[in-house]
Amino acid sequence: MPVYEAPTRDMQFLMHEVLNLQNYSNLPGFADATPDVIDAFLEESGKWHRDVLAPLNRVGDTEGCTRHDDASVTTPTGFKEAYDQFCENGFGSIAMDPNYGGQGLPLTLALAVSEMTSAANQAFAMYPGLSGGAWRAIHAAGSEDQKQTYLPPMTEGRWTGTMNLTEPQCGTDLGLIRTKAVPQEDGTYKITGNKIWISAGEHDMSENIIHLVLARIEGAPEGIKGISLFIVPKFILNEDETPGERNAVSCGGLEEKMGIHGNATCVMNYDGATGYLIGQENKGMRAMFIMMNEARLGVGLQGLAAAEVANQNAVAFAKDRLQSRSLTGPKAPDQPADPIIVHPDVRRMLMDTRAFIEGARALTYWAALQEDLSHKAEDETTRQKAGDYMALLTPIIKAYQTDKGFKGTADALQVFGGSGYVEEWGMSQFVRDTKIAMIYEGTNGIQALDLVGRKLMAEGGRYWQTFFAEIDEWAGDNKGSSETLDGYIDQMLAAKAEAMDAIQWFGANGMANPDNAGAGSHDFLHLFGLVTYAYMWVMMVKEAEPKVGDSDPYYANKLITAKYFFERMLPESSLHLAKVKAGADTVMALSADAF
Amino acid sequence: MPVYEAPTRDMQFLMHEVLNLQNYSNLPGFADATPDVIDAFLEESGKWHRDVLAPLNRVGDTEGCTRHDDASVTTPTGFKEAYDQFCENGFGSIAMDPNYGGQGLPLTLALAVSEMTSAANQAFAMYPGLSGGAWRAIHAAGSEDQKQTYLPPMTEGRWTGTMNLTEPQCGTDLGLIRTKAVPQEDGTYKITGNKIWISAGEHDMSENIIHLVLARIEGAPEGIKGISLFIVPKFILNEDETPGERNAVSCGGLEEKMGIHGNATCVMNYDGATGYLIGQENKGMRAMFIMMNEARLGVGLQGLAAAEVANQNAVAFAKDRLQSRSLTGPKAPDQPADPIIVHPDVRRMLMDTRAFIEGARALTYWAALQEDLSHKAEDETTRQKAGDYMALLTPIIKAYQTDKGFKGTADALQVFGGSGYVEEWGMSQFVRDTKIAMIYEGTNGIQALDLVGRKLMAEGGRYWQTFFAEIDEWAGDNKGSSETLDGYIDQMLAAKAEAMDAIQWFGANGMANPDNAGAGSHDFLHLFGLVTYAYMWVMMVKEAEPKVGDSDPYYANKLITAKYFFERMLPESSLHLAKVKAGADTVMALSADAF
Repeated sequence: MPVYEAPTRDMQFLMHEVLNLQNYSNLPGFADATPDVIDAFLEESGKWHRDVLAPLNRVGDTEGCTRHDDASVTTPTGFKEAYDQFCENGFGSIAMDPNYGGQGLPLTLALAVSEMTSAANQAFAMYPGLSGGAWRAIHAAGSEDQKQTYLPPMTEGRWTGTMNLTEPQCGTDLGLIRTKAVPQEDGTYKITGNKIWISAGEHDMSENIIHLVLARIEGAPEGIKGISLFIVPKFILNEDETPGERNAVSCGGLEEKMGIHGNATCVMNYDGATGYLIGQENKGMRAMFIMMNEARLGVGLQGLAAAEVANQNAVAFAKDRLQSRSLTGPKAPDQPADPIIVHPDVRRMLMDTRAFIEGARALTYWAALQEDLSHKAEDETTRQKAGDYMALLTPIIKAYQTDKGFKGTADALQVFGGSGYVEEWGMSQFVRDTKIAMIYEGTNGIQALDLVGRKLMAEGGRYWQTFFAEIDEWAGDNKGSSETLDGYIDQMLAAKAEAMDAIQWFGANGMANPDNAGAGSHDFLHLFGLVTYAYMWVMMVKEAEPKVGDSDPYYANKLITAKYFFERMLPESSLHLAKVKAGADTVMALSADAF
Repeated sequence: MPVYEAPTRDMQFLMHEVLNLQNYSNLPGFADATPDVIDAFLEESGKWHRDVLAPLNRVGDTEGCTRHDDASVTTPTGFKEAYDQFCENGFGSIAMDPNYGGQGLPLTLALAVSEMTSAANQAFAMYPGLSGGAWRAIHAAGSEDQKQTYLPPMTEGRWTGTMNLTEPQCGTDLGLIRTKAVPQEDGTYKITGNKIWISAGEHDMSENIIHLVLARIEGAPEGIKGISLFIVPKFILNEDETPGERNAVSCGGLEEKMGIHGNATCVMNYDGATGYLIGQENKGMRAMFIMMNEARLGVGLQGLAAAEVANQNAVAFAKDRLQSRSLTGPKAPDQPADPIIVHPDVRRMLMDTRAFIEGARALTYWAALQEDLSHKAEDETTRQKAGDYMALLTPIIKAYQTDKGFKGTADALQVFGGSGYVEEWGMSQFVRDTKIAMIYEGTNGIQALDLVGRKLMAEGGRYWQTFFAEIDEWAGDNKGSSETLDGYIDQMLAAKAEAMDAIQWFGANGMANPDNAGAGSHDFLHLFGLVTYAYMWVMMVKEAEPKVGDSDPYYANKLITAKYFFERMLPESSLHLAKVKAGADTVMALSADAF
C-alpha cells in the first residue's frame, strides 16, 4: 500500500526562506504565524496525514460511497472518524476569518496543510474542500445575518457545504441553467431542478449540508445575466439556528467514476426546496467568480499533491526493486541486480516530476501570499498588484499544474512497471483520482481561454505587464551575484521574451481572427507556466546557493533540481511558442463532417 | 456507450495507394490479396468488430473474469461466443503459415484486422494476441513434430497459447528466473515454479492452453545464458493428439488491474508439470526474441487502436455537445449553444490525435510489409534491408505509439469534460486499458534502451544508415514535384539531421559514460519516431495531393492533417534533441538517499 510523508522541509524552506512570511507580520494574522508555530503545525499535520488519513486512501477507492434506499449516503469506513479529527485539529479553518470562528492564519500555511490532505487522500480532501468553497461564497456575497448564521458551524466543520452549478445540459456554459427559483411571500424562494456531479452532495459526516445553488428566478433575463445564487440547507434551521425540518432536496443517485470513489458525486434533486437568496437577484455569477479563484488555486494544489505522493512511492519502489545492472557497472554487487534507481531513464521520470513539484509548490505558496496581500495589505498599490497577480496566475496554477500532475502520476505508475498496473500497489488510483483535477472547476481548456481571452486583456494588459516588470526588476537586482544564478536569470528572461512574443502575436492576429487566440491558448498557458516556474526557481536558487556548504544537504539537492529544471524543462518554452504561432488555420480547416 | 467504426478508407489508402501491396504479387500469398479481396475482408471484419465485439467492451470491463474454487476461470458474458465467431471468420490466422493451416496472406492485412480487434475490445484482443505470440515462438524454434502437433489447432483457435516469462523477482531482467526444469528419462521435463501476470493464462474459451514457459534446467549457467523454453500444455495430449490428462499447472489467482478487466491476468503455478523443450537447452531467450519483434509490433498497434476508438467517440461527442458560442460568432444560431467542435482548443486535441493516428497507422502497416519482405523476398539484399528496418523500428513502434496512444485516450476523455470521468461513457476505460501497452512486452524505457544501446550500434550502424539512405533517396526522387511536398521534404530532412546529430552525440558521449545514452534514450526514441512519421507523411502527401480535385474529400482532408503534422507535431523534434544533449550528469547527480 502506498505511503505518504509530508514534505515539511520543502514547505519550511518556502515559508521561512523564500517567501519569508515573518517579514509580513504587519498583515493581520501573520504575526501569530511565527516560524515555530508554522513548524509545529506542519509537524503535527504531517504525522496525522501520514498515520490516519493516508491509510484510508485505498479504503475509499475500493469501498466507495453507498446510497441507500432512503437517499442517504454513507462514506467509506473510517472517513467520518477521520473527518471529526480533521475538524478537531482545525485543519480546515486555518486561514478562515476569525470573525466567524476561523484561525486567521496565512493562506500559505492553510495551503501547505491542504496539500497534505490532497496528497494523503484526495477523495476525502474534497469534503472540506468544497465546504471551503461554499464558505467563501457566503463570506464574499452573503448578508451579515447569513454569515453569522452559516459560517461559524461551517468553520468548525459541523456543517459542510457544496457548490451546485452543473446541470445535464450545461457545465462550462452556465448561461444554460434551467433550475428555477420562485419567490415566496416570506422572502424565500422555492427551488426546483436537477443538478449533476455535485461533489459531497450528500454524506454522513456533518450535521447539516449547506448547498449553494445557481438558479434562475422566474422572469429573469436569459443567459448568465439571469442567474442568482441561493443557500439551500439540507435541514432548514430552527429559530435557534439548529438544524430542523428536512428540506426538499435529496440525492437522486451517485455517479460511478474513474476515481475519487471515496467522494460522493451526487445527482441532486431540488423539488420546491426552500432557498435563500445570496447577494442581489441575477448577480449569482459574480459571487461564484469571487470564490472560484481560491477554489482553482486549491485544484492546482491537487495536481502537485498527487504528483508528490505518487513520486514518493515511485522513489521508494525504485530504491527497492532490483532489476538489471547499471550501464556503468554493478552498483549493488552483493545483490542479484541493482536497484532500478541506478537506471537513467527511471531517474528521468523521477526528476521530471521532482522538478515540476518543487516549482509548483513555490508558485502555489507564492500565489497564496499574493491572495492574502490582495485582501490584507495596508496600501492600495500592494493590494492591487497582488490581486492582479492572483487573477493572472490562477488559470495557470489550475491548468498547468493539473496537466503536469496527471503526467507525474502516470510516470510514477510507469516506474513501477507491471506492479503499477495492479491496483493493490495504489499507483493506478493516483492516476485515476487526479484526472478529474484537469476537468472540474473549469476544464483546463477553459482556463487557457480565460488566460488568453480575459486575463491578458484585462486593464489594458496591466496584469502581465506588472508581473513581467517584477521579473525584470528581480533580475536586475540579482544579476551578478553568482555565475550559476546569472545563467538561470538569462534563461528565465529568454523564456519571458518568448511569452511576450506570443502576447504580441495574439495582439496582431487574435483581433482579426479570435480562433488564433483559442488555438494557441493551451500552449501559451504552458509557456507562461514555465516562465512563472523559472521565476520561482531563480528565487529558490538565490536562497539555496549560499547555504550549500551547510551540513544540511537540502540546499545542494535543491540546486541539482534547479539545474534539471533549466536544462530539461524550461527548454520546452520554444516549442510552445512555435505552436502558438502556428495559428488557427489548420486547426479549423477540416469541416466537422470530415472528422 | 462508446461506438467503433473501422477506419477502412484509411486502411485502403495505405494498402492500395501508399504501400501498393499489389506490386508485391511475386511474394508468396500476396497474389491472393487483390484489392477486391482486401476490401471485402475489411468490410466484413469492420462490420463484425462494430456490431459484435465493440458492444462487449464495457461488459468485459464491468464483469471482469472470475476464478472459481477449482481454479478454473470464466471470461465475461459473450466473450466465448465472440471468440468462436472470431475463429470461424478466420480473423486470427490471416498471415499464418499455410503449412500449418494459416491463410498466408500479407501481414499488413492481418494487422489491419488486428487493429480493429484492439480498438473494439482490447481485453478480448489479448486472447488471440498472446496465442499468436506462442504460435510464432513454436513456429520459429520448435521441431517439425512440435509444429505439426501444436500449430494447426492453434491456427484454428481451438487451442490458445500463453507466454510465461515474468516471476515476482523478475520482469525486465529475465536472467533472474527461478522456475526450474528437471529432465526426465523419457526426454520430457518436470517444470516447477510460479509465474505472474500471465495474460490469458486460464480461461474457458479453448479446448487446450499451450503455455510457453521460460525456466532454468537444473545445473544450467546463471543468468540469461541458462534459460530454456518449454511447451507446457494445460491438457497433456493423448496418442491421437487430442487433449487428455490434466497437467500440473493451474491458475493460483487473478490480478485486480487498472484496466483490461476482461482479460484473465493469472498467477500460474507449475507443480512438476510436464514440459517439452523447444529448440536447444539454454537457448530459450533466442526463441523468445524471435517472436518478440512481431509481438511488439502488435502492442504498438494497440496504442494507435486505442487512440482511434477514443478519438472517434470524442469527435462524436464534440459534434453533439452544445456548449458556449464560437469565438467567431454563433455557428448554430438556432440552437442554445454551438457544438463544442467549433472551439479551437477542442479541435487541437482531436487533431493532435488524428495526426498521430494516421502517421502511426502508416508506419505500422509499412513495418508489417517489411516483416513480410524480410522473410518472403526472393533476394537476400531485400530480405536483409527489410529485416534491418524491422529491427530498428520495432522499439519505436512499440514505445512511441503507446506513449502517444495513452495521451490520445486521455485527451479524448478530456474532450468529454465531466462526462469523460463517468465510467458509463466509456472514455475512462480506454485510458485505463491502454496504459498497460506502455508496460508489457518490455516497458517503454526498455524499448528506448534497446533502440539506443542495441539497434543503433548493430552491424556498425547499418540499420539506421540504410534507413536514412532510403529517406534521402526518396527525398531526391520526389523533390520538385510540388511546392507543398518540397516544404515537407525539407522539414523531414531537417528532423532527420537532428536525429543524426543525436546519434553523433551518443557516439561522442555514450562511450565515455553509457548513462549519457540511457538519459537520452526516451527523447531519442521520440525524435526518431517523429522522423519516421514524417517519412510516412511525405509518402502519403505524394499520393494524396494529385487526387485532391477528386470527388472523394478524403484526399483534401489527408492534406490538412499532413499540414497539421508538419506545423504542430514535427517541431517537437528540436526539443527532444536538446534533451538528448543535456546528457546524464544532472539526471544522475542526486544520491539515492536525496530522493
